Amino acid sequence: MKNKNVVVIGGGTGTYTVLSGLKKYPVNLTAIVSMADDGGSTKLLREEFGILPPGSVRPALIALSNAPQTLAELFNFRFHRGSLNGHNFGNLFITALTEHFGSFEKALEEAGKILKIQGQVIPSTLQRVRLVAELENGKIVQGETNVDVPKHDGTLRIKKIWLQPPGKANPRAVRALKEAHLIVVGPGDVFSSILPNFLVQGMKGSFQRSKAKKVYVCNIMTKFGETTHFRAESFLNTMEKYIGEGVFDYIILNTKKPPVERVKKYEKEKAEFVEGNPKEFKGRDFTIIRKDFLRKTGFIRHDPDKLAKALISIF
Amino acid sequence: MKNKNVVVIGGGTGTYTVLSGLKKYPVNLTAIVSMADDGGSTKLLREEFGILPPGSVRPALIALSNAPQTLAELFNFRFHRGSLNGHNFGNLFITALTEHFGSFEKALEEAGKILKIQGQVIPSTLQRVRLVAELENGKIVQGETNVDVPKHDGTLRIKKIWLQPPGKANPRAVRALKEAHLIVVGPGDVFSSILPNFLVQGMKGSFQRSKAKKVYVCNIMTKFGETTHFRAESFLNTMEKYIGEGVFDYIILNTKKPPVERVKKYEKEKAEFVEGNPKEFKGRDFTIIRKDFLRKTGFIRHDPDKLAKALISIF
Repeated sequence: MKNKNVVVIGGGTGTYTVLSGLKKYPVNLTAIVSMADDGGSTKLLREEFGILPPGSVRPALIALSNAPQTLAELFNFRFHRGSLNGHNFGNLFITALTEHFGSFEKALEEAGKILKIQGQVIPSTLQRVRLVAELENGKIVQGETNVDVPKHDGTLRIKKIWLQPPGKANPRAVRALKEAHLIVVGPGDVFSSILPNFLVQGMKGSFQRSKAKKVYVCNIMTKFGETTHFRAESFLNTMEKYIGEGVFDYIILNTKKPPVERVKKYEKEKAEFVEGNPKEFKGRDFTIIRKDFLRKTGFIRHDPDKLAKALISIF
Repeated sequence: MKNKNVVVIGGGTGTYTVLSGLKKYPVNLTAIVSMADDGGSTKLLREEFGILPPGSVRPALIALSNAPQTLAELFNFRFHRGSLNGHNFGNLFITALTEHFGSFEKALEEAGKILKIQGQVIPSTLQRVRLVAELENGKIVQGETNVDVPKHDGTLRIKKIWLQPPGKANPRAVRALKEAHLIVVGPGDVFSSILPNFLVQGMKGSFQRSKAKKVYVCNIMTKFGETTHFRAESFLNTMEKYIGEGVFDYIILNTKKPPVERVKKYEKEKAEFVEGNPKEFKGRDFTIIRKDFLRKTGFIRHDPDKLAKALISIF
């Protein structure tokens, strides 16, 4: 696997998980992250500084960091008082670098040096884009943060999403896809984190044309408003609808159901365990890797090491 | 000079100059900095987070930093837009660390690690103190920032300054003074930067009792409202009034008058070149080091290398 190029596409916690697991192997890591984020601290910084969303590159930077623990911790630190309330320190860091150097890409490069990252983090586009969703009742929802946390009752499904303006793929992202040996899509928020990467002009085609092995890592939990009641098959179908039918060579599915008390903690946010029967995928042309990928304790997420092991086994 | 302990007392740009010059020599450097600052970005952060002033430790941290240039530059970066307008990034950095670790001293220690500082930066006190000044007309001025930039017409001299509450000397500062071989006081703002260090209980005594050689580096320019029309002798007399008569073993005086066009730039802020005739010090029991210490271009400040060379020659 030495000198193999692995590209991870996503943006949030899921990308963090994949990268922190893969980081332990001697592969060249590239994270391509969505630039559609516009919530919280990022929203204010986008509005006031007109910069690309710092919040989207942060998890990938931290995952790849080999800097002392304190600096990585600090990057995730959020102010809870005063006029800085709600601001994430990592976001301020990236904003200060962008203001100082006059370029988001240069800022990202310098942040990478300071955090001593092992690999690279590439914004899927360098243009300012906005995520728009149409719900099944025809209602239009503007902005990633409104797709992410539904303002309606949450029972309405998302019919379609697109970017406004569409934005062009970052040439560096295109090159990374071309040179990749393995591309990992997900896990992560389907509409607000993963798919926006593929909506910029040129990304879908570059992904399809890449000779890399392509893996989709299905989420373990649904997300209310985005993927309410989704089964594994619904996740895959949604991916294929936007990225192309039959694009994936491998599908990674978790089989381990978490104990009731862990699932119970998700009741408030109406998230459910993702069920999936391999029979649902009968006749499809990909390899299914079904295993226990569950983290032992805490949040119901993929265990970084188990996931990385399965991904590396693909080589 | 190897393994000699050099302590620099001050806080602002002057301390930055001394430290960046001395850093090139194999001495153990300690900066003791005033905790009375309360202006600008620091003011807001003190009010909102109740922390010690991050702005006072910043110049010393940057001077001692061996981290990549970008990080040091970033520490000095100031936001000029939006809700972060006026905030210095280094101050936000130290505030985030203080919030994260729950202690200013721990934050300072961690900031030192991240910036890979060569030496240590010690707050003169760990208590929250406030600088108070009495002008010659009896008027009381509250707060360092109001002493620093006079709100009155600036012709009134400062009669007396003190801290409210007085604050206790940081035991680490006391130890550093005790173990010092050389203590450098100044250059820097006399009332708003240097002297507040000596106003905390225990500092003056520790300084006097220290067996170190003690040097006073006289400012090159006066500061309107603080040291209006001061000559070298007035600087020294003011120092001795607060720290004790005859405490200094060496006085460093600049002899080189800057060209008119450089002085002209200071007319707006009513700062003047500090004149000094060695005869004024006749009969005093210290060695005078009179030389050209002037920086070649730009701000009228000490040249870090010339100053360091003179200081090191004292060993």
